[in-house]
Amino acid sequence: MVVPIQEAKRFMVEAMVAVGTVQQHAEQMADVLVAADYRGHYSHGLNRLEMYLADIETKTTDANAKPAVLKESPATAWVDGNNALGPVVGNFCMQLAIQKAEAVGVGWVVAKRSNHYGIAGWYTRTALQHGLLGMSFTNTSPLMGPTRAKEAALGTNPLSLAAPGKNGDSFVLDMATTAVAVGKIEMQRRKGEPITEGWAQDPQGQSTTDADLAFKTGCLMPLGGPEITSGYKGYGLGLLVETFCGVLAGSAFGPNIRRWMENTDRPADLGQCFVAINPQFFAPGFEDRMSSLMDHLRSMHPADPSKPVLVPGDPELNHMKMVDEQGGVPYHENQLKASAALAKRLAIRPLQEA
Amino acid sequence: MVVPIQEAKRFMVEAMVAVGTVQQHAEQMADVLVAADYRGHYSHGLNRLEMYLADIETKTTDANAKPAVLKESPATAWVDGNNALGPVVGNFCMQLAIQKAEAVGVGWVVAKRSNHYGIAGWYTRTALQHGLLGMSFTNTSPLMGPTRAKEAALGTNPLSLAAPGKNGDSFVLDMATTAVAVGKIEMQRRKGEPITEGWAQDPQGQSTTDADLAFKTGCLMPLGGPEITSGYKGYGLGLLVETFCGVLAGSAFGPNIRRWMENTDRPADLGQCFVAINPQFFAPGFEDRMSSLMDHLRSMHPADPSKPVLVPGDPELNHMKMVDEQGGVPYHENQLKASAALAKRLAIRPLQEA
Repeated sequence: MVVPIQEAKRFMVEAMVAVGTVQQHAEQMADVLVAADYRGHYSHGLNRLEMYLADIETKTTDANAKPAVLKESPATAWVDGNNALGPVVGNFCMQLAIQKAEAVGVGWVVAKRSNHYGIAGWYTRTALQHGLLGMSFTNTSPLMGPTRAKEAALGTNPLSLAAPGKNGDSFVLDMATTAVAVGKIEMQRRKGEPITEGWAQDPQGQSTTDADLAFKTGCLMPLGGPEITSGYKGYGLGLLVETFCGVLAGSAFGPNIRRWMENTDRPADLGQCFVAINPQFFAPGFEDRMSSLMDHLRSMHPADPSKPVLVPGDPELNHMKMVDEQGGVPYHENQLKASAALAKRLAIRPLQEA
Repeated sequence: MVVPIQEAKRFMVEAMVAVGTVQQHAEQMADVLVAADYRGHYSHGLNRLEMYLADIETKTTDANAKPAVLKESPATAWVDGNNALGPVVGNFCMQLAIQKAEAVGVGWVVAKRSNHYGIAGWYTRTALQHGLLGMSFTNTSPLMGPTRAKEAALGTNPLSLAAPGKNGDSFVLDMATTAVAVGKIEMQRRKGEPITEGWAQDPQGQSTTDADLAFKTGCLMPLGGPEITSGYKGYGLGLLVETFCGVLAGSAFGPNIRRWMENTDRPADLGQCFVAINPQFFAPGFEDRMSSLMDHLRSMHPADPSKPVLVPGDPELNHMKMVDEQGGVPYHENQLKASAALAKRLAIRPLQEA
């Protein structure tokens, strides 16, 4: 019961086109969503399609708008996303950053008036294809409680770095700056099981293990959890991401960003940041050293022999291998049901299993 | 029983000069150490002076060497630290990054063959004086256990970001990517008290609360602690820092770096990275938005009314205010005794209390 990657993409493209998206933009969106599912980040794949469709149908996002450069130097650009689809803005900015890094060693591009752009790692891995390092950051709806605070003021604010090793190997960090994503709390809640201390707060601003209360409160703890285990560092990292996104870009930022799944009548006006770095402008042999370090890490003695030491990006590679072996993505039954209903509503061909 | 800032600096400069450092380099070193004490990071101030002196006396560090540019573009530079004092390399690189950011919007400078450079925040705060954002990263001796590993392979690998707000206000993040610094474990050990779960590992690679065992094992956990609370993110951040430092610079990296307080017969060959970003190349009004966000955060309802919500950098500002009010730094008695012995050995004037 798996769906081949190409079929998943076909379905997503047709759905996007059915609500009025031009083919090329629909394909950019589908590529990012399919990549998320392929890599095992199901929350950011097909699962999000209906959210993007709703944004287009309500004209909250302009599916056919194109981003434009507002200010530019050999190493930087400030971009107006023009409320286009997140991946359209993201790909535009990353390509720009790559061109600049190829010319002068580093490209730093920020965009305002963007939308949800899917997994941050999509953009940074683009840089790998050019032998470059890539970084990306996006702000998101308020969902994280700054250390000591009772309420949320920053988003899950993810950051990603991709760096090339030898023979196609790579280090790909793609992480929210909160301890966990909301999805992990939702999963425990559905199972009726408690959450781990340090994931989320109750309405009084204390760490809670009650999954239901945590879900309703909607206030994640930053990476590091409470103050005693240095949660203020995760809070600081969330603020770092916001500084490079909303504050540098002049978009909405922090508590001003529309709430998740609320206020969907107004554009998201997200801020995003894209960086490319050309290792050829620094010490020769970057890929050799990167691979040497990754090889060392992967060969370390694990505390539990059944759990080998990994490099960030390895869990995703393992998932991709599994998908390749099975001939497709093993979507959850509920996901397939929702997709069937969607196909009917949009009058497109339903998802075909392999 | 406090020592005025200027007197602390005088003492450090004289000590550095007594072992053969030229005045200008001695002053650069003293400025960084005094700044650490002023800001309350005592582990990185006067406390470290004897380590630097030993490196100079054994000629492991070349106190009078100057860094040199090996490769350069309008936006980047690759620097050979020439085994000079860390602050001499760091100041050189940050000035270069600032010049480039003033010209083309961003400056990205990496150095190999550097030495311990003190607090990362020293360099990033230099960028503030030019209305720029500053970032800095350094690799350090192996002391952090990658998630699932039994042993250390990366250092505490700190990162810093400084960003200017209005009227001299600022956001200054300066953090190790480990859950805590070794000093915190040392302190619990001296008090005979346990450490918090998630700070450090035992020899089997499990989280321990035994301060003595943790100190002897010398394997800190990354920010986030164990895998269940996303410690792999902190591990990924440590690897990000190493990528921008040792791997990009072509210096020693990861497990190849000499052990802390061991192998002191060979140069540290540290890698460091310095970035400056000019907000004028992006959306107008950066400082207004930064201050608006910081004001919001500081005015949030705290879970505990006696513990206000802070912005990274605020604890240091509070400490500086305390030092100003007391007319000097309140050094620990043992620190003063050690300094008296040092003064005798080097035949310099002892530290004078206010």
